[in-house]
Amino acid sequence: MNIQKVSLQVSLLSPPSSPLKIIADSARITRGIEESHYTDQDYFHLLYKLGHHSVMEHVCFSFRIEGISRACSHQLVRFRIGVSFTQRSQRYTNESNLQIIVPPSIEKNPSKYETYIEYIKHLQALYCDLLKTGIPKEDARFLLPNAAATSLIMTMNFRELMHACHLRLCTKAQWEIQQLFQAVKQEMHQYSPFLAHYLQPKCVFQGHCTEVKPCKSKDQIEEEWNQLQNNTL
Amino acid sequence: MNIQKVSLQVSLLSPPSSPLKIIADSARITRGIEESHYTDQDYFHLLYKLGHHSVMEHVCFSFRIEGISRACSHQLVRFRIGVSFTQRSQRYTNESNLQIIVPPSIEKNPSKYETYIEYIKHLQALYCDLLKTGIPKEDARFLLPNAAATSLIMTMNFRELMHACHLRLCTKAQWEIQQLFQAVKQEMHQYSPFLAHYLQPKCVFQGHCTEVKPCKSKDQIEEEWNQLQNNTL
Amino acid sequence: MNIQKVSLQVSLLSPPSSPLKIIADSARITRGIEESHYTDQDYFHLLYKLGHHSVMEHVCFSFRIEGISRACSHQLVRFRIGVSFTQRSQRYTNESNLQIIVPPSIEKNPSKYETYIEYIKHLQALYCDLLKTGIPKEDARFLLPNAAATSLIMTMNFRELMHACHLRLCTKAQWEIQQLFQAVKQEMHQYSPFLAHYLQPKCVFQGHCTEVKPCKSKDQIEEEWNQLQNNTL
Amino acid sequence: MNIQKVSLQVSLLSPPSSPLKIIADSARITRGIEESHYTDQDYFHLLYKLGHHSVMEHVCFSFRIEGISRACSHQLVRFRIGVSFTQRSQRYTNESNLQIIVPPSIEKNPSKYETYIEYIKHLQALYCDLLKTGIPKEDARFLLPNAAATSLIMTMNFRELMHACHLRLCTKAQWEIQQLFQAVKQEMHQYSPFLAHYLQPKCVFQGHCTEVKPCKSKDQIEEEWNQLQNNTL
Repeated sequence: MNIQKVSLQVSLLSPPSSPLKIIADSARITRGIEESHYTDQDYFHLLYKLGHHSVMEHVCFSFRIEGISRACSHQLVRFRIGVSFTQRSQRYTNESNLQIIVPPSIEKNPSKYETYIEYIKHLQALYCDLLKTGIPKEDARFLLPNAAATSLIMTMNFRELMHACHLRLCTKAQWEIQQLFQAVKQEMHQYSPFLAHYLQPKCVFQGHCTEVKPCKSKDQIEEEWNQLQNNTL
Repeated sequence: MNIQKVSLQVSLLSPPSSPLKIIADSARITRGIEESHYTDQDYFHLLYKLGHHSVMEHVCFSFRIEGISRACSHQLVRFRIGVSFTQRSQRYTNESNLQIIVPPSIEKNPSKYETYIEYIKHLQALYCDLLKTGIPKEDARFLLPNAAATSLIMTMNFRELMHACHLRLCTKAQWEIQQLFQAVKQEMHQYSPFLAHYLQPKCVFQGHCTEVKPCKSKDQIEEEWNQLQNNTL
Repeated sequence: MNIQKVSLQVSLLSPPSSPLKIIADSARITRGIEESHYTDQDYFHLLYKLGHHSVMEHVCFSFRIEGISRACSHQLVRFRIGVSFTQRSQRYTNESNLQIIVPPSIEKNPSKYETYIEYIKHLQALYCDLLKTGIPKEDARFLLPNAAATSLIMTMNFRELMHACHLRLCTKAQWEIQQLFQAVKQEMHQYSPFLAHYLQPKCVFQGHCTEVKPCKSKDQIEEEWNQLQNNTL
Repeated sequence: MNIQKVSLQVSLLSPPSSPLKIIADSARITRGIEESHYTDQDYFHLLYKLGHHSVMEHVCFSFRIEGISRACSHQLVRFRIGVSFTQRSQRYTNESNLQIIVPPSIEKNPSKYETYIEYIKHLQALYCDLLKTGIPKEDARFLLPNAAATSLIMTMNFRELMHACHLRLCTKAQWEIQQLFQAVKQEMHQYSPFLAHYLQPKCVFQGHCTEVKPCKSKDQIEEEWNQLQNNTL
């Protein structure tokens, strides 16, 4: 029995070798043009700008995600379109050595942090007790907190990845899922700075903010939107 | 601050007035037959038997679901096709008066039950403490257990409802989600015994069981499958 | 054997009785508020404005669509999310009495119109000949033109209906599918002027146009967007 | 102006490099087992047999499809789940040099074949005439027949690919879409004989046939189902 504070880790699994080519070639087929005077990058940008985003579904990315809370995963798996998830199951795994997530608001306060950890240690002891007396794992887990860490594999096509970033890179998104998509964007940046560039919060995508209290001025949003449209962000 | 043990409640919200007619009329359109010698019920059964299930997507049912654990809702929202969910959010609601689910395996053992409740009361106190000292609800909830009750609205078309029942009415499904779909089937039975009849576990649908340890004999499954095919179940 | 020029007909089939109530009640559940000081209409508008559109998936609308070309239906069935189609099948129906759609650009020119009809009559004769000599309907239909009329049942949830209107009410959309969604909007208007109001082309939804040659000025789009945001369109 | 009879061509585009590993590793994560005594192939087979097919969504395959009729593509794009299509558009392409598909039932009869071709040549002439006199391509195409060839890019995850094969490898499926999925299976076989093995018609998948007139005996279906279950097909 053990408790371990863990933090977020995201890694991109064997990504496709030529995503821009597949996307550009798919678009070329719609007009019967096998060749075009655009480079794949320029063509991608044009398609983005014109809103022809369906061709961006032809490339898919798989991520291994570790060290997120079950609170966060519950929200994450609500994405339904162009996405597949496989998640560590508390019904089958023995969580006697619990890994947990600590929210920054609690971590930065030593006394609260101490109580938080102490509390979870008690819970952990009770969870182990229940298992020992024959309660099935799927019932003992009722005691496990939202703080419990989970792992999952997430596969998303690029169109949906842009959509998820619109929602979750917004500074109004819950901190943990925001961090997750920042890490996803970073992994994509390692792989292709060009593609990562198109993973933006919804204000930069739409040119305006729909939140009650925007985090940026109207002018700034318009400027970033213009930069994205002109590929100079 | 208060803890309340709650139990499952499912209610069907303003269901469509003539589901069989919409389904049968949709099927008639494929062959250009405005009239047919089949009754809507007989036609529905024929479509079921022949595997023409896409027409069953034209009717949707909304359920209000209350008193399920967050453990169960996390699993439930994994359905992605032909379904929409809206769920009570622990980010916005104050859970100082926590409602909880108790697994039967724990409830039937008085001493375990007592410890379970006591434990959750401590947690509850800590959750309230955190809120008082300014921790946001979305962070304090990291302490809330999987046992916490949630509410949601679920809208499914009938084809997906059949599919969800194939998976979740199976006796190998986790007890809570199994109870949920039994309650869903019961609500549907109140509304239309005829339609409810087609909500069956996957063995009765397929004619064989894919679980490692089947709960019924091969003969019994085949008999129930035959009865469903002949509408005499 | 006969040829008949037909035109578009759209009818809404047994719509839900209280769509605004279902949508507003679903949204109320997320925050644990059973009652609110908003009317259902005001709440709907707020949800629309804030971008909380997922609750609009809880109501679905079925339309019977007749008198569209197979060219149009091929494009229509590309919608995949929150939508179900059942379509008249040329594999099973005998199209000896062919119903056809005539594009306005051809109809307004008498000599072209005459040639168009004459041509299709020849085709029709050949189709009937093939059937007589034992060619299966599914092969004889290879001669049928894109102009051939089809019928279908389309069920869409309201969120997807808004999305489809964003794309297909745009004046740059192909004329026939544009007419189709104008007719869909009209049917919705008969049923609920309030809901129909939210079925708008994408420029009015986004506040800007992504087409190469916009049909409206930037100012006009911004004005209409503002009116929609303020519910005064 | 020219007419060309074309035939089906399917090619797999830059497939993923280690599909079995991604699928097996995804499954391992659910139980928290990083290593297992199963090989990736054995684990895949076990997952297939137990019906844990959702992990098979983590690998996607893109196919370039050329030389299918618009009749076939209209049916093909009805697949909605786990699939993306980008198709040559008759609104934008000039079809003066029409490529066509000829059904075998017509091709094998010389006189019918001649009439079929002659008819399409007339149509072709009329299509070209309309374009010359200023009718837009999107309206002139109303004359183009279902026989017109089209091209598309189709991306499917492996779970949906299995599902599409269940439906379209059935000998009762329309001949052209059946040929298409036979060619898809062949391409997959070139790439991975192991994976191609799991692309089977629904009878072999389910263990029984739901068609009115089965093409195989009950015993034969059961034998093939057993062979697939035991990986000896």
